[in-house]
Amino acid sequence: MKNERITLAHGSGGSATRDLIADLFASCFANPFLDRLEDAALLARPEGGVALTTDSYVITPLVFPGGDIGKLAVCGTVNDLWMMGAEPRFLTAGFIIEEGLDYAILDSVVKSMAREAAAQNVLVVTGDTKVVGALGSSGGQAAAGQTATGGLFINTCGLGSRVFQGVSAEKSLGREHLREGDAVLVSGVLGNHQACILSRRLGIENGIASDCAGLGGMVRALLREGVRVKLMRDITRGGLATVLNEIVRDDLGIRLEEREIPVDGEVEAFCGLLGLDLLYMANEGKFVCVVENRDVTRALAILHQNELGTRAAVVGHVTARNQGEPGVLLMTRLGGIRVVDVLYGEGLPRIC
Amino acid sequence: MKNERITLAHGSGGSATRDLIADLFASCFANPFLDRLEDAALLARPEGGVALTTDSYVITPLVFPGGDIGKLAVCGTVNDLWMMGAEPRFLTAGFIIEEGLDYAILDSVVKSMAREAAAQNVLVVTGDTKVVGALGSSGGQAAAGQTATGGLFINTCGLGSRVFQGVSAEKSLGREHLREGDAVLVSGVLGNHQACILSRRLGIENGIASDCAGLGGMVRALLREGVRVKLMRDITRGGLATVLNEIVRDDLGIRLEEREIPVDGEVEAFCGLLGLDLLYMANEGKFVCVVENRDVTRALAILHQNELGTRAAVVGHVTARNQGEPGVLLMTRLGGIRVVDVLYGEGLPRIC
Repeated sequence: MKNERITLAHGSGGSATRDLIADLFASCFANPFLDRLEDAALLARPEGGVALTTDSYVITPLVFPGGDIGKLAVCGTVNDLWMMGAEPRFLTAGFIIEEGLDYAILDSVVKSMAREAAAQNVLVVTGDTKVVGALGSSGGQAAAGQTATGGLFINTCGLGSRVFQGVSAEKSLGREHLREGDAVLVSGVLGNHQACILSRRLGIENGIASDCAGLGGMVRALLREGVRVKLMRDITRGGLATVLNEIVRDDLGIRLEEREIPVDGEVEAFCGLLGLDLLYMANEGKFVCVVENRDVTRALAILHQNELGTRAAVVGHVTARNQGEPGVLLMTRLGGIRVVDVLYGEGLPRIC
Repeated sequence: MKNERITLAHGSGGSATRDLIADLFASCFANPFLDRLEDAALLARPEGGVALTTDSYVITPLVFPGGDIGKLAVCGTVNDLWMMGAEPRFLTAGFIIEEGLDYAILDSVVKSMAREAAAQNVLVVTGDTKVVGALGSSGGQAAAGQTATGGLFINTCGLGSRVFQGVSAEKSLGREHLREGDAVLVSGVLGNHQACILSRRLGIENGIASDCAGLGGMVRALLREGVRVKLMRDITRGGLATVLNEIVRDDLGIRLEEREIPVDGEVEAFCGLLGLDLLYMANEGKFVCVVENRDVTRALAILHQNELGTRAAVVGHVTARNQGEPGVLLMTRLGGIRVVDVLYGEGLPRIC
């Protein structure tokens, strides 16, 4: 099928579907659960309850520096489980393919997904394939009236075990555990994913790659070493500003120090050039972590040991908040104070 | 928002997304797991292992006689779990919305989904919303170059408990348990869903409604009464012919009796008029069930007691199969024999 394109027949449930599943999905994701190719995968009873999450991935371009939609669909979903203190075990994979998609692209995306699943130690145990006609272009890039261009959406659902390494981390995770003085850490430089995708869309040549990555190594190390973690959130759509606004409470806010927020020089320059605010830029391999302040040195040391966390930094603290006060404040480099609110939309082409 | 349309801002992760989630999804699907609105839902440890399934729904039109894409997204996924002898417990819901979709349509679909989830006794515990620009029309109906029309795709993932009513049914389910002489039952009339959707697409006025429904009542009754069920499959994409070809083995085939296959008069006439083969027509509330022949009378009686199973019938039997022989044969009404093979595609606009 190497030189072929996907047609509606591949989504019909007939022999074209069967062959696509056998030749590509079943062979790339092979494992005893998937191999039965039944309506549902039968799984062993996980230790200590389960965590369940889902995400759809609609990114364009499908392939970008640092990753592709397949790698993203694995990392994004396992990260959502890790953020809840759950260890990812199983994934589902739902493909919605636009008629006309090059088989070679699908093949490359599925293989990337399989590689990343192996790296993240999860099994793709069940899936679904649909083919639709005449998409324009996901991401709003196509002019109205543009004809089909071979798009692809992927939905992954992740099932995780709520206990790992004998510890049920979740009991201590959640914004109800936040206290004044807790430290707010980010695991590395911000903005790379969105800057990368925008660069590709705008045809700007630069060296910026997406930070797309699984966060399990860092989370596992923090929890294994007994760092008193209050809460974790991956910093995706809406950026750090949006995530922090979601975790503040009526009685507790967050104060950020602009000069502590880690950023690559090239990403900072890119944001400056286009007038983008780093605080709202999406990432796909970064998380924010609130820890008890007395554990902050240890937490930073642990993150710095991980190759994905070398630029981890304390970017702010949890503060008392009175009625009517904004939830998130930024101390600017110049010594000013700025309210960090939630945007209505992106003000940018949406990208993840 | 009643008179509004969905825009890209609703998928940005900003306040428009937050409001859409709060006003619609969280309020319609409210339950203690979803209400936390975290990255993943934390669930209790299910009894006896879990079954996991996923399906994406890309049907047009979004609303049709007998159901809509929301009802379908619940029924289709719970049915996949029931077919494996697992009791559906939790659903995820991933919405991919085309910019321009009327809020009123989304509202109606989500409410329908919530009603059906309640009827099927499952909780929607986590979800995801993405908005994309410029879809043409799912289902391949749009002429190339047609502008955005407000489409909607829904992915649901279902988590089921592998034990219900104290019985682990799965041990006895699977094609490895088939034996020569086993009876092949279908739970009711075939073809209604696809005939309904095709009628709407072709602008044909008739009384045909989709059979979209959850199969839990019938499955539960069969297993509770101890009927020796060998295997169940819901008869969706590709119809009875495709499902049966998936379950035959190298050493066992299936012989169907055409005169026993239940069909509504209006659907039969519709198929005749358009030259459609009932055996390949999709359904969304029917299943095939293979039982030990000595239990067939009891199985039929149980199905007939359910309002969804009043037309259940024995349509064939499992037969010995020699090397090189076709897997599924049809004894026609006129006494002939026809090989029932798998089609390459649909030969029809795809509809489910």
